[in-house]
Amino acid sequence: MTNIEQYKVHKEPFYQAQGDEVALYEAAYKARLPVMVKGPTGCGKSRFIEYMAWKLNKPLITVACNEDMTASDLVGRYLLDANGTRWLDGPLTTAARIGAICYLDEVVEARQDTTVVIHPLTDHRRTLPLDKKGELIEAHPDFQLVISYNPGYQSLMKDLKQSTKQRFTGFEFDYPDAALESEILAKETGLGIEVCSKLVQIGQAARNLKGHGLDEGISTRLLVYAATLIKNGVDAKAACRMALVRPITDDADIRDTLDHAIDVSFA
Amino acid sequence: MTNIEQYKVHKEPFYQAQGDEVALYEAAYKARLPVMVKGPTGCGKSRFIEYMAWKLNKPLITVACNEDMTASDLVGRYLLDANGTRWLDGPLTTAARIGAICYLDEVVEARQDTTVVIHPLTDHRRTLPLDKKGELIEAHPDFQLVISYNPGYQSLMKDLKQSTKQRFTGFEFDYPDAALESEILAKETGLGIEVCSKLVQIGQAARNLKGHGLDEGISTRLLVYAATLIKNGVDAKAACRMALVRPITDDADIRDTLDHAIDVSFA
Amino acid sequence: MTNIEQYKVHKEPFYQAQGDEVALYEAAYKARLPVMVKGPTGCGKSRFIEYMAWKLNKPLITVACNEDMTASDLVGRYLLDANGTRWLDGPLTTAARIGAICYLDEVVEARQDTTVVIHPLTDHRRTLPLDKKGELIEAHPDFQLVISYNPGYQSLMKDLKQSTKQRFTGFEFDYPDAALESEILAKETGLGIEVCSKLVQIGQAARNLKGHGLDEGISTRLLVYAATLIKNGVDAKAACRMALVRPITDDADIRDTLDHAIDVSFA
Amino acid sequence: MTNIEQYKVHKEPFYQAQGDEVALYEAAYKARLPVMVKGPTGCGKSRFIEYMAWKLNKPLITVACNEDMTASDLVGRYLLDANGTRWLDGPLTTAARIGAICYLDEVVEARQDTTVVIHPLTDHRRTLPLDKKGELIEAHPDFQLVISYNPGYQSLMKDLKQSTKQRFTGFEFDYPDAALESEILAKETGLGIEVCSKLVQIGQAARNLKGHGLDEGISTRLLVYAATLIKNGVDAKAACRMALVRPITDDADIRDTLDHAIDVSFA
Amino acid sequence: MTNIEQYKVHKEPFYQAQGDEVALYEAAYKARLPVMVKGPTGCGKSRFIEYMAWKLNKPLITVACNEDMTASDLVGRYLLDANGTRWLDGPLTTAARIGAICYLDEVVEARQDTTVVIHPLTDHRRTLPLDKKGELIEAHPDFQLVISYNPGYQSLMKDLKQSTKQRFTGFEFDYPDAALESEILAKETGLGIEVCSKLVQIGQAARNLKGHGLDEGISTRLLVYAATLIKNGVDAKAACRMALVRPITDDADIRDTLDHAIDVSFA
Amino acid sequence: MTNIEQYKVHKEPFYQAQGDEVALYEAAYKARLPVMVKGPTGCGKSRFIEYMAWKLNKPLITVACNEDMTASDLVGRYLLDANGTRWLDGPLTTAARIGAICYLDEVVEARQDTTVVIHPLTDHRRTLPLDKKGELIEAHPDFQLVISYNPGYQSLMKDLKQSTKQRFTGFEFDYPDAALESEILAKETGLGIEVCSKLVQIGQAARNLKGHGLDEGISTRLLVYAATLIKNGVDAKAACRMALVRPITDDADIRDTLDHAIDVSFA
Repeated sequence: MTNIEQYKVHKEPFYQAQGDEVALYEAAYKARLPVMVKGPTGCGKSRFIEYMAWKLNKPLITVACNEDMTASDLVGRYLLDANGTRWLDGPLTTAARIGAICYLDEVVEARQDTTVVIHPLTDHRRTLPLDKKGELIEAHPDFQLVISYNPGYQSLMKDLKQSTKQRFTGFEFDYPDAALESEILAKETGLGIEVCSKLVQIGQAARNLKGHGLDEGISTRLLVYAATLIKNGVDAKAACRMALVRPITDDADIRDTLDHAIDVSFA
Repeated sequence: MTNIEQYKVHKEPFYQAQGDEVALYEAAYKARLPVMVKGPTGCGKSRFIEYMAWKLNKPLITVACNEDMTASDLVGRYLLDANGTRWLDGPLTTAARIGAICYLDEVVEARQDTTVVIHPLTDHRRTLPLDKKGELIEAHPDFQLVISYNPGYQSLMKDLKQSTKQRFTGFEFDYPDAALESEILAKETGLGIEVCSKLVQIGQAARNLKGHGLDEGISTRLLVYAATLIKNGVDAKAACRMALVRPITDDADIRDTLDHAIDVSFA
Repeated sequence: MTNIEQYKVHKEPFYQAQGDEVALYEAAYKARLPVMVKGPTGCGKSRFIEYMAWKLNKPLITVACNEDMTASDLVGRYLLDANGTRWLDGPLTTAARIGAICYLDEVVEARQDTTVVIHPLTDHRRTLPLDKKGELIEAHPDFQLVISYNPGYQSLMKDLKQSTKQRFTGFEFDYPDAALESEILAKETGLGIEVCSKLVQIGQAARNLKGHGLDEGISTRLLVYAATLIKNGVDAKAACRMALVRPITDDADIRDTLDHAIDVSFA
Repeated sequence: MTNIEQYKVHKEPFYQAQGDEVALYEAAYKARLPVMVKGPTGCGKSRFIEYMAWKLNKPLITVACNEDMTASDLVGRYLLDANGTRWLDGPLTTAARIGAICYLDEVVEARQDTTVVIHPLTDHRRTLPLDKKGELIEAHPDFQLVISYNPGYQSLMKDLKQSTKQRFTGFEFDYPDAALESEILAKETGLGIEVCSKLVQIGQAARNLKGHGLDEGISTRLLVYAATLIKNGVDAKAACRMALVRPITDDADIRDTLDHAIDVSFA
Repeated sequence: MTNIEQYKVHKEPFYQAQGDEVALYEAAYKARLPVMVKGPTGCGKSRFIEYMAWKLNKPLITVACNEDMTASDLVGRYLLDANGTRWLDGPLTTAARIGAICYLDEVVEARQDTTVVIHPLTDHRRTLPLDKKGELIEAHPDFQLVISYNPGYQSLMKDLKQSTKQRFTGFEFDYPDAALESEILAKETGLGIEVCSKLVQIGQAARNLKGHGLDEGISTRLLVYAATLIKNGVDAKAACRMALVRPITDDADIRDTLDHAIDVSFA
Repeated sequence: MTNIEQYKVHKEPFYQAQGDEVALYEAAYKARLPVMVKGPTGCGKSRFIEYMAWKLNKPLITVACNEDMTASDLVGRYLLDANGTRWLDGPLTTAARIGAICYLDEVVEARQDTTVVIHPLTDHRRTLPLDKKGELIEAHPDFQLVISYNPGYQSLMKDLKQSTKQRFTGFEFDYPDAALESEILAKETGLGIEVCSKLVQIGQAARNLKGHGLDEGISTRLLVYAATLIKNGVDAKAACRMALVRPITDDADIRDTLDHAIDVSFA
């Protein structure tokens, strides 16, 4: 027996809505339409899904996709047991059986063609064939499939196929605007709103460097890191260098530019 | 014993014929000629085969092909058991034994050379050698092989070999014409025909962008998603953005063009 | 004990000789010289070998080669059993033991270097070392090796090595001439010779497009498909489109050219 | 039961601070923020982490990452046992359970996508899903993740993804300045400060050749090797050639340039 | 116990010496120096080694090398048995234990680096470490290693490393001269010397096309095939086309040129 | 229990020192510094290490590295036993436990990243984590790591990483000078010094061709082969062609040049 409770989100996750995404998600869930959430690193995609699972009171099974993930890792496999082989459901199968929201995080990391195993779960059939077991399972009425991906990463080699994309409704996320982001920092870390605003200002300056030496802007997550360190007594400039600059660049020029912006902000 | 009933299609699937394809398929099945269905994403290929299996009252075994699929995944393999190894038929072998229609969905995803295992089943021999088991099985008289593929995907790297193609008769599908597609939306979702026509109009506009920034047009399936959300009370513009635009493009220009067309339609 | 009877061809296969190939094959078999049959898709290579096996009354073991085929798939492997491991002969080993004709179909699909395992069977030694079993088996006096390949497919990446080629005598096949091909269609399907001639005419027109938009011409097999459908009551034009055109091309221009030729033929 | 004591650093490692890195690390640890240490080969990154583990009195589990490392090597796998399969935690799982500092050394060597398994451990969730076991473990409150990498190695093929980088706070290391490095040599080997200063001078000269024929400068570690050999009675010039030159270059010109510098220093 | 007798060459193989190679081989064997035989396809390299094994009355273990061959295929591996795992010597290990001549045929086909396992057997150590078994075996005094390769195949990707080559003494083979080759054909097949001379003439003409459309010339083996077919009553022209032309070329021009030469010879 | 005696070098290997390498090695061993020996093929690197192991009276474990070697081949793995799985130490682990000199021959052949497993054994930690066993072993006080490599082979694809190189002290070897090399030949084979000098002269001529058609010069080992054959009664010219020329080149021009030099020497 699978323990459903372990997949429930028991505590309300901190989530600050940016628009009507909560209501739209509820409508998509009501029709059990598959959902795709898109957006840059650390803007809150995973947090949103966790929040919705809590709000809808449904179990949530998250799978961090990676290139070595095979269809068996999603669907299940035979294990050797004292009495021979024993079938072990994979996370996708478990979710389909118990009626969980199955969240495939960074789905483009998976081999493009491994993703075809989700196809029969995302159309009118809502079935999952376990070819290796010779079983065809019908998804629980509560089951829903959610995938996330970061459009900034897509390359010619790694993209979802249209025949996969066209099985989802889509949500597009971005970093929150300055006022909201400052508020988020303040609420999450307890740091004063003024210092939080300064951090957000630095973050926004760095986001303008995206494509000009930076692959991605500074995420909300890193701003929370900086705020946490300052709240814990670390000097603001040291905290910013450590949380906002060193992790994202190895380029000396970019580093110095960002360090200078920090020095000016906290002069 | 394989449970044949689980592979039967018990409820008539919703299918709206576009031409004489039903009669032609029946003729091909009567002569047990292998069938290939071609066409773009989400135009109803799988639904058609499901409908024919229901109409002919034959079991249907569907295999979603993928690049990691080996010949063993189709044909079968030895499993370790309490008493040593035990042979487990793969879906192709099961279909050949019980006389099912075996439907290999998106067959070009499979390794080109894995597909040679279907050759002896598709000529006058109608046999399947299980090399690893040392058994040569003759296909059940009712067995038929069906494959689907999307010509829009073919690349130099991935195409069926002529020696495979030349073992099939072919059906070419496309999106239904506007009147028929509107009718399909209305019948499937219960939404009024007028709104459905607007959705189809947006879909057709987007299909003209194929090759000019879009890899594929908006499928009938996504139009059904949009209709479903509107029927469930979601604002038409929000539903279209979420079901018709966000899933298919990451390009800001294309997105804005489509969003604008939606705004005009539902102004 | 291997059941030899299951490998015997019990019913005379339909085969229409194109020249002196039957007598030459008998001479090659008499001296047990290895044989290579070359020719385009669907021209009757496999049928010829099956016919010769029937005529010589020798068992025939056919292996559809593919890129994932390892030497173990040909030679054999250890399986896990209730009492530990058990050796299972592969099809090549079985053929060498029982004195069958071993037919490696589309041999260039196999990894080029996997083919070296056939070398000691194709020279004066006529032995097969089972390295993993530590056994050296001598081929049964009736054993003969036959390979097929399609020169049209050869690329720089996939070709037989000269050290493999130079172990075979060769037969070169092509499509039969028009009169003979019409006769074959009529005999195999029971359709009138006049309609068969029209089908062959279309086939020959398409073969002229090879290299000008078509990778291969229309095979005799597809002509038989078209004749079968017509014989079963399908409209000649629909049957030709379905059996001769849709399977072999995704190109709209080529498709329309061929459809037009069909319309003219059956006007 | 895992023996925690074996992972404790029982003896204070020799570590000479270069700045405020000890206090900053303590702040990051206090908030359990993940840490990234960057810097050239042999500058003391691993020694610093070992020192901090000793100072904080926490167990330290080090994993030398490599390209063949799979997610299972980090997370764990099933082993075959007398009674069937038995789960064996990988080092990351062990660290998460016992509350160790888990140090992934040279993390970019691991397959880029294998690194996604650390994601849920590095955000607010602090969980590690053992997909193959169907278990979701919550990290021990003392658990912290640390990674090291050498920016000089990064190529287009091998770099951390931004979605990974943006989960860490960063420390940037470099070789110590001359006075401090001489002191380190003297303290570690017992060799006189004057000879140590000469060695450091040679090391700094070689570091200027980086990018001009040398891939990396001479590390502090190699200077310690040279000092050790001299202390043990080896001629200074022979010791330098053997410890500072032969290991780092195969180029005759660079070798002669460095040998000459050594001859001048110890003339 | 390994059955040594099965590796003995019991019947004198037909071998016609081309020079002093027999005496030189005996000297190399006397000093147990490793031997490399080089030469084009089908010129008699394997026959020579077989002859020497017969003459020296030593067991001969032949391994046809291929790209998928791992070091374990040469050295041995653990097999699962009723009582757990059991070690099975590979052919190289067997040869080293029983004092056989171990002949690695077409050694460059093996992965370049797999060949390093033969290194300790080919220098003064004459040992073979079975790393996986933790055993170090000393070669039997009679053991000798022989490798063959075809210089015509070497490419940048596949060549023996100098550190491997420089462990062997070398023999260079070529096709025999015309008189000797005709004599070989006559002796092996019983065909009259005059017809044999004509065959050799055709063979030599084709060898001049090497590099001008032919990858390799016609081997002595193929000439023997042609002579065999003629001796068995096949028309000389048909026999030549089948044995000398069809196997070695797919190019229509080359084929016609060779066919014409045959027609002239046997006009 | 590992049998240490089998790894001892019981008989003094023939070794002629070229300089102060013996004393320097002893100093490196005294401080247990890791050692790298560099030099061309067949110049005596392995013999030197064997000699030092004999001189220091320490067990020697040699591993011939190759591209297929995994970290498990060095460190150890679980084997299946009658009572489930059993751990088997790899050669590196055995060496670390018993205090042997572990000699990784041609280390660059191993996958670059596999070599990271030796890192913790080569710095102040001197530990080896057996991740798969959950054990951290401390190296025996007598343990030392030695690697060899041939700088002539290094390519962009295969080179040691600086973070690996900078863990070793280095010895650079080359062929001995003419007088010493002649003496070595005479001592090892018993052939007269005059003929040995001629052989060395030919070897040195060939070494000048390195980079001008030869990848490597003729090694001392091949000169010993030639001397051995001559001593055994083979004609000097035949011996030289067979031992010095045929193994190292497939190029007809180079071959003739070298053959001519031999003819002149032994005219």
